[in-house]
Amino acid sequence: MSAEKTNQSWGGRFSEPVDAFVARFTASVDFDKRLYRHDIMGSIAHASMLEQAGVLSAAERDAIIDGLKQIQSEIEAGQFDWRVDLEDVHMNIEARLTERIGITGKKLHTGRSRNDQVATDIRLWLRDEIDTILGEITRLQQGLLEQAERHAEVIMPGFTHLQTAQPVTFGHHLLAWFEMLARDHERLVDCRKRVNRMPLGSAALAGTTYPIQREITCRLLGFEAVGGNSLDGVSDRDFAIEFCAAASLAMMHLSRFSEELVLWTSAQFNFIELPDRFCTGSSIMPQKKNPDVPELVRGKSGRVFGHLTGLLTLMKGQPLAYNKDNQEDKEPLFDAVDTLRDSLRAFADMVPAIKPRVEAMREAARRGFSTATDLADYLVRKGLPFRDCHEIVGHAVKYGVESGKDLAEMSLDELRRFSDQISEDVFAVLTLEGSVNARDHVGGTAPAQVRAAVARGRALLAAR
Amino acid sequence: MSAEKTNQSWGGRFSEPVDAFVARFTASVDFDKRLYRHDIMGSIAHASMLEQAGVLSAAERDAIIDGLKQIQSEIEAGQFDWRVDLEDVHMNIEARLTERIGITGKKLHTGRSRNDQVATDIRLWLRDEIDTILGEITRLQQGLLEQAERHAEVIMPGFTHLQTAQPVTFGHHLLAWFEMLARDHERLVDCRKRVNRMPLGSAALAGTTYPIQREITCRLLGFEAVGGNSLDGVSDRDFAIEFCAAASLAMMHLSRFSEELVLWTSAQFNFIELPDRFCTGSSIMPQKKNPDVPELVRGKSGRVFGHLTGLLTLMKGQPLAYNKDNQEDKEPLFDAVDTLRDSLRAFADMVPAIKPRVEAMREAARRGFSTATDLADYLVRKGLPFRDCHEIVGHAVKYGVESGKDLAEMSLDELRRFSDQISEDVFAVLTLEGSVNARDHVGGTAPAQVRAAVARGRALLAAR
Amino acid sequence: MSAEKTNQSWGGRFSEPVDAFVARFTASVDFDKRLYRHDIMGSIAHASMLEQAGVLSAAERDAIIDGLKQIQSEIEAGQFDWRVDLEDVHMNIEARLTERIGITGKKLHTGRSRNDQVATDIRLWLRDEIDTILGEITRLQQGLLEQAERHAEVIMPGFTHLQTAQPVTFGHHLLAWFEMLARDHERLVDCRKRVNRMPLGSAALAGTTYPIQREITCRLLGFEAVGGNSLDGVSDRDFAIEFCAAASLAMMHLSRFSEELVLWTSAQFNFIELPDRFCTGSSIMPQKKNPDVPELVRGKSGRVFGHLTGLLTLMKGQPLAYNKDNQEDKEPLFDAVDTLRDSLRAFADMVPAIKPRVEAMREAARRGFSTATDLADYLVRKGLPFRDCHEIVGHAVKYGVESGKDLAEMSLDELRRFSDQISEDVFAVLTLEGSVNARDHVGGTAPAQVRAAVARGRALLAAR
Amino acid sequence: MSAEKTNQSWGGRFSEPVDAFVARFTASVDFDKRLYRHDIMGSIAHASMLEQAGVLSAAERDAIIDGLKQIQSEIEAGQFDWRVDLEDVHMNIEARLTERIGITGKKLHTGRSRNDQVATDIRLWLRDEIDTILGEITRLQQGLLEQAERHAEVIMPGFTHLQTAQPVTFGHHLLAWFEMLARDHERLVDCRKRVNRMPLGSAALAGTTYPIQREITCRLLGFEAVGGNSLDGVSDRDFAIEFCAAASLAMMHLSRFSEELVLWTSAQFNFIELPDRFCTGSSIMPQKKNPDVPELVRGKSGRVFGHLTGLLTLMKGQPLAYNKDNQEDKEPLFDAVDTLRDSLRAFADMVPAIKPRVEAMREAARRGFSTATDLADYLVRKGLPFRDCHEIVGHAVKYGVESGKDLAEMSLDELRRFSDQISEDVFAVLTLEGSVNARDHVGGTAPAQVRAAVARGRALLAAR
Repeated sequence: MSAEKTNQSWGGRFSEPVDAFVARFTASVDFDKRLYRHDIMGSIAHASMLEQAGVLSAAERDAIIDGLKQIQSEIEAGQFDWRVDLEDVHMNIEARLTERIGITGKKLHTGRSRNDQVATDIRLWLRDEIDTILGEITRLQQGLLEQAERHAEVIMPGFTHLQTAQPVTFGHHLLAWFEMLARDHERLVDCRKRVNRMPLGSAALAGTTYPIQREITCRLLGFEAVGGNSLDGVSDRDFAIEFCAAASLAMMHLSRFSEELVLWTSAQFNFIELPDRFCTGSSIMPQKKNPDVPELVRGKSGRVFGHLTGLLTLMKGQPLAYNKDNQEDKEPLFDAVDTLRDSLRAFADMVPAIKPRVEAMREAARRGFSTATDLADYLVRKGLPFRDCHEIVGHAVKYGVESGKDLAEMSLDELRRFSDQISEDVFAVLTLEGSVNARDHVGGTAPAQVRAAVARGRALLAAR
Repeated sequence: MSAEKTNQSWGGRFSEPVDAFVARFTASVDFDKRLYRHDIMGSIAHASMLEQAGVLSAAERDAIIDGLKQIQSEIEAGQFDWRVDLEDVHMNIEARLTERIGITGKKLHTGRSRNDQVATDIRLWLRDEIDTILGEITRLQQGLLEQAERHAEVIMPGFTHLQTAQPVTFGHHLLAWFEMLARDHERLVDCRKRVNRMPLGSAALAGTTYPIQREITCRLLGFEAVGGNSLDGVSDRDFAIEFCAAASLAMMHLSRFSEELVLWTSAQFNFIELPDRFCTGSSIMPQKKNPDVPELVRGKSGRVFGHLTGLLTLMKGQPLAYNKDNQEDKEPLFDAVDTLRDSLRAFADMVPAIKPRVEAMREAARRGFSTATDLADYLVRKGLPFRDCHEIVGHAVKYGVESGKDLAEMSLDELRRFSDQISEDVFAVLTLEGSVNARDHVGGTAPAQVRAAVARGRALLAAR
Repeated sequence: MSAEKTNQSWGGRFSEPVDAFVARFTASVDFDKRLYRHDIMGSIAHASMLEQAGVLSAAERDAIIDGLKQIQSEIEAGQFDWRVDLEDVHMNIEARLTERIGITGKKLHTGRSRNDQVATDIRLWLRDEIDTILGEITRLQQGLLEQAERHAEVIMPGFTHLQTAQPVTFGHHLLAWFEMLARDHERLVDCRKRVNRMPLGSAALAGTTYPIQREITCRLLGFEAVGGNSLDGVSDRDFAIEFCAAASLAMMHLSRFSEELVLWTSAQFNFIELPDRFCTGSSIMPQKKNPDVPELVRGKSGRVFGHLTGLLTLMKGQPLAYNKDNQEDKEPLFDAVDTLRDSLRAFADMVPAIKPRVEAMREAARRGFSTATDLADYLVRKGLPFRDCHEIVGHAVKYGVESGKDLAEMSLDELRRFSDQISEDVFAVLTLEGSVNARDHVGGTAPAQVRAAVARGRALLAAR
Repeated sequence: MSAEKTNQSWGGRFSEPVDAFVARFTASVDFDKRLYRHDIMGSIAHASMLEQAGVLSAAERDAIIDGLKQIQSEIEAGQFDWRVDLEDVHMNIEARLTERIGITGKKLHTGRSRNDQVATDIRLWLRDEIDTILGEITRLQQGLLEQAERHAEVIMPGFTHLQTAQPVTFGHHLLAWFEMLARDHERLVDCRKRVNRMPLGSAALAGTTYPIQREITCRLLGFEAVGGNSLDGVSDRDFAIEFCAAASLAMMHLSRFSEELVLWTSAQFNFIELPDRFCTGSSIMPQKKNPDVPELVRGKSGRVFGHLTGLLTLMKGQPLAYNKDNQEDKEPLFDAVDTLRDSLRAFADMVPAIKPRVEAMREAARRGFSTATDLADYLVRKGLPFRDCHEIVGHAVKYGVESGKDLAEMSLDELRRFSDQISEDVFAVLTLEGSVNARDHVGGTAPAQVRAAVARGRALLAAR
């Protein structure tokens, strides 16, 4: 067990330096350096406020801001030397600032603590990431609307229990995904409100004795509100959990979407074609063209659900206020953000390139007795009670299964064996177009309704 | 393997009845009967709409509505015979309706399916439960505000890392919980918007051929909007997951709250007294008075997190539209609702009865060098750079640990060993009141700020 | 807020009775009464030991044992009056015992506490349930072996990425599930070892001052070992979590199995037929025959994963020894046991009745270029490097996709366009039987290997 | 959207190259390069087997093995150029091999596929990591045994519900953690059996047409058994999940351990001292010495639970055989391994350095009525029924709470107010030593039992 020298920022009370393994084990700079831009943004606002509050002189403020901007350039040029013994992004930047501008650098930390600083940084960072994600959702929804409009009349089988249920249009099916994404967008917008509140000024846990003016930093940083309680301010990680919950729902949607794309590209379904550029092959089997992107996204749902579980566990049973446990909030959050953003991007790129195999879809809809409900409804219109119609059609289907004929393939005589209410007009009912067009109300699968839904969707996106 | 007779509602196509074990295994009536009231509410609205749409006559509608109301009375009187062979709450009620009013009962199901029916029922039910939960949150927040106001000046140690950090007021600490609950309330209100959208009219998956008018049922049932896509309408369970996520956050907050109550009632902390009526004893150890309610609530966070995990898993990778898997949404949701509601109720009852042990809190704050930061700030005001002050106070604390003296217990001579900038006025800074009052900005722990926060809290509750 | 009278078993120290809602909220008898049989079994062993240790007289022991047996009969006859005010199964039974046999009943609790009693009860109960589950796993594996043997030569497409990869036999595919279940069996046997250790004698937390002889109760109850530390004995819930982890893996396997059954019963795959008795229909769509059992089992994986998450959360961060939180262990454990046992039972009933559609499977294997790897291997044998062969076959497949021909459907001339190394003997390689038979090593898909694996499987089951 | 050139290993069938973003999104080399050593180990064994099977010449084998060893050196010297366009660790190494040794390099892949290769690599890697983890568990247990022996007579309060329950010895308490770790060790040994089975030879999914001899590679790689089914071989990830479940339990134990260390270092408990080298300070509060290591470990339990959730989700509902989803198994597994290993290491370093504050512990045990059960047991020995004794002592405790006296501080007269059976000999019973020594049976807290348990523990470790 070797040891490093005592940490300069809090060593006075300590008799021995931190163990070297412990120093690495407890340091966060390897992952939290990602927050550097927002850390500097927060520090600039803090310095500006301190000057307005009379704690810093204008010259001091300017020196600090200049120094921070130069540090940002260093970092972005890859010239910054991140040091594990300085623990985290905050101390790394502050130490470098003092190196550059001297003793004035030490004044930046007046009236704040790392506890409120890191909480501020993550919120600023997450706010930006949410905005990027919202943009990708919109882009993906755009692609869905275009495809839905283009294929508003393409008929495919609708499934329940993965059994052929009733004919629907491909456009209608695409719009189901649009709806899911619309909720994801809403949820993230709601989440963003709660992300965008300012803990800065909570200091270590109780507020500070310096005459800070929180409204100033709040305004400079674009926060919607100042946090109302300092103990809560430094220990609250709800925003990270709420984000992961919203991300889990979005990834769950993409996993369902993916499942269908994987099914549809199978030889058995053969409903769509994915362009080669979204697929990979096999190093062994020369014929393979694998739908890697949807498979991977389906799998990635797991890691986001896992991060949600992890963060809830992290916070469970923690007493107030800040505990070191909270340092564990970052990696799961970062990975959840990256996973969701990249998955959305991959889908937004891919969706406009999906090509339906119109004939295969139609053929599948033609089989599987998909218009059986229409036949029952037809008999209802002839005056029979629905439950009796259901039974009649059930028998016809049973006959069809045994004889290998779909309903529309039976002769009138065959059909009339099950009910003498059936007459020549039944065949119009048994067509796919007839079935689809008949479901003509808000939310129904009729092409007219699909087009109306596309128009509503366009309006929704336009209003964002 | 024994077998029951073929189910009447879909038997036509089947050659053999469902296996008896399978029938029990797949039936949901044992738990979904809980939805009966909302199922009947939905059916009444549906019947009313069908009449306006010309599908039912006024007489038929009246017969149906009367029948349903009588069934509701039967159920509430405990006289309803729930049958597993009828699978679920919907078929049980419909079968009974037909028993009571004859063939007209069979017409109720026109233009809908169990797929959209159950989705409608759960949303109606959950909407009501959310309203109850919102009420309990408000009640608990009320209790916190009262306690916070009453104890705005009571001083206790604030902790970070469970180490004494700085003095705070008990009122300030209570308001941290208030803030958490305020976010929970907000999140549930946001969630409620998405719960309160109507899937009815989606029918099995594609909409229906009957001339339904969804705006009518929407209005009658108090939904905010009609669902825009039928495939999504029957398969969406986001609302249940989003609720469980919000409930998980709320339970996580209660688990933190509980952890502190358990700590504070320990002999070691001894910060508060819980009335006997919220505690239980031991059958073995006569002296025990255990804080059962907070312990149990802390433990119950696990089951709600578990339900969230379970529901996300449930939906992961499901293709559209309705699959039988979805039946598994109810039990976790029901239990999450019950757990959150009861936990909030227990806390709302208990919180007003918590008594702080003012002297023990104060004594604890007096120890543990809680005013060390104030001493550092004092030295800053004398003109030293903060980092140097931090070091000076660190050495003083080290001496204090070794000599068993807190800072305020040292003589001026002792203190001056660490810095000759220290003079007589230091003792004012080292008082608890001085420390607390100095943190006098929005969100800070000064009693004046606590009172201001209570006022803001009152306004927030009043505006609900 | 109303209140009940003070609980008789620990009221001495209390000034007011427990609040009525709190009493219900903290009581466990509604669910833990399920442990009654194992509670009585444990009490009988405890009483026998106390007599041998000289704490009870033989007459007292006999009175207690008789009384407990009568209580068991009462419970099983549905004549026992469970009382929430007595909190749990233990106090209900003890109170009734004292009612029946007088003051001697009160002596039963000597040298134990509810803390070690409940830990003992759950372990005894879980041990029995694991044995039932192991039996169901074996039954299901038996069914798989029979089916695998029967269909050792039936050819179907093997998939990776749900794309046709290489031909496999249906028997081979079934044995993949067999392997998964073999691991589940192993894991549960390993878990059972750790379930079957005795906490009884830990008393409240520190052991007891009475001269108990733990080896006696250990032997009487069939435990494998006496727990070595009393603090751990009353607070350990590893066994419940380990069981839920093993159950989660088993449910995950069943979810994969289910996914395939659902796919295979779709019109698109049409690989198997499930008997009607394992399916249900639709109240709306007369043609539907839904694979409810696999869908439901797939969905039920979620609840078991959720219970695992819940129990881990429950125990996270709990200090020693027993805390009330632990009461929350039972409901998730009970539900995990029920879910796994019933899901296995449903599958064990269903699997022997699955009928492959041999022609459809074969036809699917014939398409999708499933023998492309065989063609590449053929070219390797002609002396070309594998990577070049892969490329050649890749081009042939591309041509096949465009021209709608599988490899075996191309003429020799067509094939030779891609490599002049191809000659007439290629067609033997492109047959399904050739492909399958060639994978003739341990674990390979050749029918001979499938039969060998069946024989190994039989030996494994026989040795249980 | 830019694009790279077609991947060389499977490009033949493709018309366009993979999209550049997709290539990065689907590549795994950034994280799976960590497996390089085990990948090379597996390849060497595979080449050796191919030679024995007559597929490679001895010269070819030697060229391959030499080449692989040189590549390993390159990697370890940091001179290897990892390429994302080569997707993963396997293709990177194979491509480099061919670069180095020419066309023979392409023969290495004969009779295997990346599907069985990666499954083999992870198992080899995990087997090694488990062995390291087992070593750290033993080291930590060793430290606990030493501490337990040293402090076998140090008395502290035992808690239930975090309320003072009965006196225990510090040594006894430490051994509760020893027991938990003993189960963790057992579970990981059980898990290792199932990790250590060989999928190599499963090839892509169905086995291979080459005359491989799996027993040879099995022996060379030290696997315990050859996997029995190729479809299962390439798709099974049970071992990763089982490891994460065992790791979750271990982390849960460490979280409980941590919780107690955090409590015990608080000013309120003040039971132990942690050396400075395991703590960190605050940049603001000069007096702070925070127990960072236990806090962080407590928090880290969350990430491991999360990975378990993530992996179960990943596998849920996946059809056979290999799907791209499975690539997502690595990052969570890697992180779970690192987290558990480092957390154990930190604890194994820290535990021997923990110093109990003997006086503070004893003082705490003296208060809180910790010998109340002993007083009840004393009265039982005087002939009163236990339930009555419990009530008597309950009243004495109530008096003690009101008068601020512990039982041993009351005069004989005071005690006799509650029962005239109490006489002078009661004070021996109320001593801490009397209480602790009286719990003298296997698993009890008496110092003699603690020493016996230490001896058993030593024997257990010695037998590993």
